[in-house]
Amino acid sequence: MMGKLYGVGLGPGDPDLMSVKADRMVRSTQNIAYFRKQGRAGRARKIVDGMLRDDAVHFAMEYPVTTEIPLSDPRYNEILSAFYADCMAHLEKLVKAGEDVVVLCEGDPFFYGSFMHLYTRLKDVIPVEVVPAITGMSAAWTASGAPITWGDDILSTVMGTLDEDTLTRAMTDADALVVMKIGRNLPKVRRALAAAGKAERAVLVKFASMEGQEMCPLTEFTDETLPYFSIIIVHGQGRRP
Amino acid sequence: MMGKLYGVGLGPGDPDLMSVKADRMVRSTQNIAYFRKQGRAGRARKIVDGMLRDDAVHFAMEYPVTTEIPLSDPRYNEILSAFYADCMAHLEKLVKAGEDVVVLCEGDPFFYGSFMHLYTRLKDVIPVEVVPAITGMSAAWTASGAPITWGDDILSTVMGTLDEDTLTRAMTDADALVVMKIGRNLPKVRRALAAAGKAERAVLVKFASMEGQEMCPLTEFTDETLPYFSIIIVHGQGRRP
Repeated sequence: MMGKLYGVGLGPGDPDLMSVKADRMVRSTQNIAYFRKQGRAGRARKIVDGMLRDDAVHFAMEYPVTTEIPLSDPRYNEILSAFYADCMAHLEKLVKAGEDVVVLCEGDPFFYGSFMHLYTRLKDVIPVEVVPAITGMSAAWTASGAPITWGDDILSTVMGTLDEDTLTRAMTDADALVVMKIGRNLPKVRRALAAAGKAERAVLVKFASMEGQEMCPLTEFTDETLPYFSIIIVHGQGRRP
Repeated sequence: MMGKLYGVGLGPGDPDLMSVKADRMVRSTQNIAYFRKQGRAGRARKIVDGMLRDDAVHFAMEYPVTTEIPLSDPRYNEILSAFYADCMAHLEKLVKAGEDVVVLCEGDPFFYGSFMHLYTRLKDVIPVEVVPAITGMSAAWTASGAPITWGDDILSTVMGTLDEDTLTRAMTDADALVVMKIGRNLPKVRRALAAAGKAERAVLVKFASMEGQEMCPLTEFTDETLPYFSIIIVHGQGRRP
């Protein structure tokens, strides 16, 4: 009898925003796995602090260090592929030995998540189930204190890693925006927002739903870079009675 | 002492996908409110079947019938505005009398939700808090069995109520798509998807996370209209190791 691999979305960070299903699975599982950077506790792991069984068996999947290799270098993909293959081999062995394994996922697993890389490699090999979750962007627009979309607004989510022309075009065409993966791309994101006529309406949300949650109009923020848990949103202005 | 108004997102339909916070609030509140169509139980209300206190006081906010009035007719907005004003007056009175009130919201309250209309009218009058939730689109892409976005894919959510040119342009520019509010707009949505070169990849998901969940490639679905709980998605094809 095979076990099952569960990719369980934990939501934006506040454990109270985990689903009832995720909460139950996290508390009851014996085998737990999560991605983390070397030398770090792991963001997903921290969300479930105090919730795990005392006898839980942990499998920390530590990302290889790739910061010096550009995304376009074939070595980047090779290193990451080898990493995912290692993770996969261990998880496959556990599940084939009859164990259930819960992989902790920040946010929603199928929305720009790391679990997707394991999922596509394993879904035809062992039983895999995904549990959706509240996205970080939902927490961000909730924190902003205003609805993100009205009526038939078009909402686009764009990554700060895109080139400036693509960013500008996408930002111009959409009514409402969510911008993620910003970091050191902030100056480029600012220029694209300005070119799209949306810089004045842009709101920066840091650590949505987490300790240290902050928000301000982007025009009031003068740094050149942003921490990981930062999202820029532009609210839609659509039809409303 | 004033009470507080809570707009509580219930998620896509499966009660197990409600947040721990929403679950607790729904089970403990004495005052509960929800939108519904006249003569119907109410979709949000049905999600929490069996969870409410026996002594809960219900406030059903019944939408006025507007099906014969086009969106562009000023009477449409007048009728809806009067309806929201009525709802608001009652909720304001309760909260000012010291009561907490939980408004049940399908999906995520700030993402194309009805609660937004109460929120914007009441947020400066009484204390209001919004609890985010898993969106219907997250349940749809989870049901589809494939990640919606990879790498730096652009995801756009578009409403079937938009005109065909706007739909086509938005569908062309995005890498991944979520199409909602389809209903009788299905033939137009099909034409726009085809013009954008995405018809072959489109997947239809009905009743995501609910009883009767179904999915199929859109090309295999031949009806001219779709029920309310239907979402069309097109998966991104972005960068991945």
